[in-house]
Amino acid sequence: MEISASTVKELREKTGAGILDCKKALAESGGDMEKAVDNLRRKGLAAAARKMGRVAAEGLVGAYIHAGGKIGVLVELNCETDSAARTAEFQTLLKDVAMQIAAASPRYIRPQDVPPEELEREREIHRRQALDSGKPEKFVGKIVEGKMERFYSEVCLLEQAFIKDPDRKVGDLILETGARLGENIQVRRFARYHLGEGVER
Amino acid sequence: MEISASTVKELREKTGAGILDCKKALAESGGDMEKAVDNLRRKGLAAAARKMGRVAAEGLVGAYIHAGGKIGVLVELNCETDSAARTAEFQTLLKDVAMQIAAASPRYIRPQDVPPEELEREREIHRRQALDSGKPEKFVGKIVEGKMERFYSEVCLLEQAFIKDPDRKVGDLILETGARLGENIQVRRFARYHLGEGVER
Repeated sequence: MEISASTVKELREKTGAGILDCKKALAESGGDMEKAVDNLRRKGLAAAARKMGRVAAEGLVGAYIHAGGKIGVLVELNCETDSAARTAEFQTLLKDVAMQIAAASPRYIRPQDVPPEELEREREIHRRQALDSGKPEKFVGKIVEGKMERFYSEVCLLEQAFIKDPDRKVGDLILETGARLGENIQVRRFARYHLGEGVER
Repeated sequence: MEISASTVKELREKTGAGILDCKKALAESGGDMEKAVDNLRRKGLAAAARKMGRVAAEGLVGAYIHAGGKIGVLVELNCETDSAARTAEFQTLLKDVAMQIAAASPRYIRPQDVPPEELEREREIHRRQALDSGKPEKFVGKIVEGKMERFYSEVCLLEQAFIKDPDRKVGDLILETGARLGENIQVRRFARYHLGEGVER
């Protein structure tokens, strides 16, 4: 059977499980949302979401230097226990996230981190573009929201396509790893320096 | 002969050369400032200062991870030419600066970077302490300036004692390396993350 993207999205929001796990769970439950949730819970894949309230203050600080020192990234990845931070899986995730930041230059972690003024400016540009190109007023809202999704997927780390597997978002990768480790994993902060950027020559 | 600290300081400000080189130059010139400057120029040790106006937009971004991922540092060290950035000496300096930041937690690069409100708060604390402990009003200014020097040497990277050679400031280390390479070297920016700092548990 066909599983709609919006059903998958709803299940992901309920459980925090990965997109592929949600698709599989829905296929197995014949599209029944509640059964799919139970299914994921049973497999432990919904664990991360249930633990979202727990404090993530352990973890690791990692760095990645690219292009012979022209680009550098520092990132803090938090989890709840030091033992989780010591797993190879967590360390791989840290490295993947640092490489992602080096390669794809996000400016924020999540959409909520974008300053309201910047969102407003962005929305206004797309609204005007849509109107200028003769789109009917009643479609403009939808068009703008579509453009904003795209904007988020460019500037927000968790919304970016994962460079090593572009079918997944970085946020999915983190949730999936968290589910497997039974931990709430959070990207706390990052810095990305590109040599000489902003220096007046 | 005795060379006073203030004479050494004056020579350093004129030439940008290191403290030891300045002491040596003054000893050789018998304390004559102009001769000492010429002396340093001849040896190429005053080069960095004369080049201070040139643009430093090359260099390297480096990282240092300490204590198994509990502390991480990212730093951008600029110079004028890519060939200087490729020297072992520049790379050693980068590593030393990153380790310094990890170990000594500076919050700013130089005194000018400390926000005026923080300076004012700091000054006021020391002024009150001096007055409360019964110090005569006329000495308070001097006492406060002494305390501020100490404050700078704690919070400003370039004013900190270099951890691998505490008789030198980090700023001296950078000026000396710059003089030897004939380059203007600048610490452009840094980030230091200590795992879990500021997270509410």
